[in-house]
Amino acid sequence: MLFERVAIVGVGLIGGSFALALKEAKACGHVVGAGRSAANLRRAQELGVIDSIAPDAVAAAHNADLVLLATPVAQFLRLFREIASVLGPRALVTDGGSTKRDVIAAARAALGRKISQFVPAHPIAGAEKSGAEAASAGLFRDRRVVITALPENSESTVKKVQDAWSACGARIARMDAEEHDAILGAVSHLPHVLAYALVHEFASREEGPELFAHAAGGFRDFTRIASSHPEMWRDICIANSDRILEELRRYRKKLDALGKLLEAGDGAALEKLFAEARAARDKWIHSS
Amino acid sequence: MLFERVAIVGVGLIGGSFALALKEAKACGHVVGAGRSAANLRRAQELGVIDSIAPDAVAAAHNADLVLLATPVAQFLRLFREIASVLGPRALVTDGGSTKRDVIAAARAALGRKISQFVPAHPIAGAEKSGAEAASAGLFRDRRVVITALPENSESTVKKVQDAWSACGARIARMDAEEHDAILGAVSHLPHVLAYALVHEFASREEGPELFAHAAGGFRDFTRIASSHPEMWRDICIANSDRILEELRRYRKKLDALGKLLEAGDGAALEKLFAEARAARDKWIHSS
Repeated sequence: MLFERVAIVGVGLIGGSFALALKEAKACGHVVGAGRSAANLRRAQELGVIDSIAPDAVAAAHNADLVLLATPVAQFLRLFREIASVLGPRALVTDGGSTKRDVIAAARAALGRKISQFVPAHPIAGAEKSGAEAASAGLFRDRRVVITALPENSESTVKKVQDAWSACGARIARMDAEEHDAILGAVSHLPHVLAYALVHEFASREEGPELFAHAAGGFRDFTRIASSHPEMWRDICIANSDRILEELRRYRKKLDALGKLLEAGDGAALEKLFAEARAARDKWIHSS
Repeated sequence: MLFERVAIVGVGLIGGSFALALKEAKACGHVVGAGRSAANLRRAQELGVIDSIAPDAVAAAHNADLVLLATPVAQFLRLFREIASVLGPRALVTDGGSTKRDVIAAARAALGRKISQFVPAHPIAGAEKSGAEAASAGLFRDRRVVITALPENSESTVKKVQDAWSACGARIARMDAEEHDAILGAVSHLPHVLAYALVHEFASREEGPELFAHAAGGFRDFTRIASSHPEMWRDICIANSDRILEELRRYRKKLDALGKLLEAGDGAALEKLFAEARAARDKWIHSS
């Protein structure tokens, strides 16, 4: 057993799946959950995702060996402040936030010298569903978890947190927070923004119902991520806005270039671009 | 039986699935195929998609009761010209093209007074796979087929072609070609262009391999349609460029607005936009 008592703050898709996966791997003892929605916590307990409910993050973190923060990231600063005082000297903290620079800044501001006990993590797994109902023990299996370890972390601390994520079935990748936010800003945050924008554009129009009536599988898959949790994505967009704006700028440049090919009726150049994109995607699909 | 002899010109995903579906419904007798790739036609015959191979479209259309054109749309003008002379007075022609104004213009230019025998159709079904291998009898089941009937078509002619598509399991929708191209330009052609653009943008960068290494399920689904057939999508883009450019213009305006919210750090407005998009998509998913 890796951890006797695990506290999950935010028992949603990520937090709940972390609890279930640790339990399935027999890597933890008691799991206590805390969060904003009493109904969600009760449901989590009924489903066996958590063993008990704490009234707040402080109570959950009290005596915990491992605390996972898995709420939308804008709440992290407050949560770090709340748990700072009750965190035992051997307790570890990790998180499931999709952005890392802001999370680390919040931890530094709130945890003081206990910053060495926090090992930032981002499990690159998700779904357009949310809440404890959506949790599953297999969510992280064969998924990548990016660990953006801090200079203050000892290697044994990092290893313990990595062991927890590995026990969930995840594959560990290490990088620094800057690199993480740049990469995820491109391959995850930008597509979410693009998908939300497209659905919103059509929904805003008078002819919206007619458009949706003729949308098919391509549109459904392209926009799946536009059914993601709005508050979570609000926080990600605010936390990583500089990187997302940079990606948006580059993407709009690409669209401008593509628009020029359409205006010129340059079929050969369009076909070349499409073929190169298909080849790159197919290569990625077959290697991943 | 609806048709004794069916000719499929272009035995790919659409043409092959049409043949298989008609056979499964016992709605046709002999199916003859024609196309550019001899290897694909042989494979189609091995798989039982077609019963025989014709050397060209003229030979396939000779004595056919129904001809389906299912090649990329830029070939349609030539194909209409080729089959015009051999088309019997009772033979019907339909197509699987994703654009309709250009297809109708080509038919008018080539078919002369036989234009009344052509009933344009667009089955709104597809996949990122292509070729006879990808064909399946169930591709059109419960999918919408848009029929953009011509003033020259008699109702009985339209009905016979609709019956063929209905036999494939499709649901029939009627509209004019202008409306079709406007709607599909928005909900299908634009997302394809957006997905191709995103994959191409990342593949073009030096850090491309690093980006793809951290891409996950959201990116995979968002870009699924970027694995579509480049030549087919080149032709669609050229044929419907005015509508796609108009949609691109509107989408870029939406991205500009979203970029401004990111710059301003306006979390409330971002969350509202995301929530509205999610609600619109979820409503569509549950009703479709």
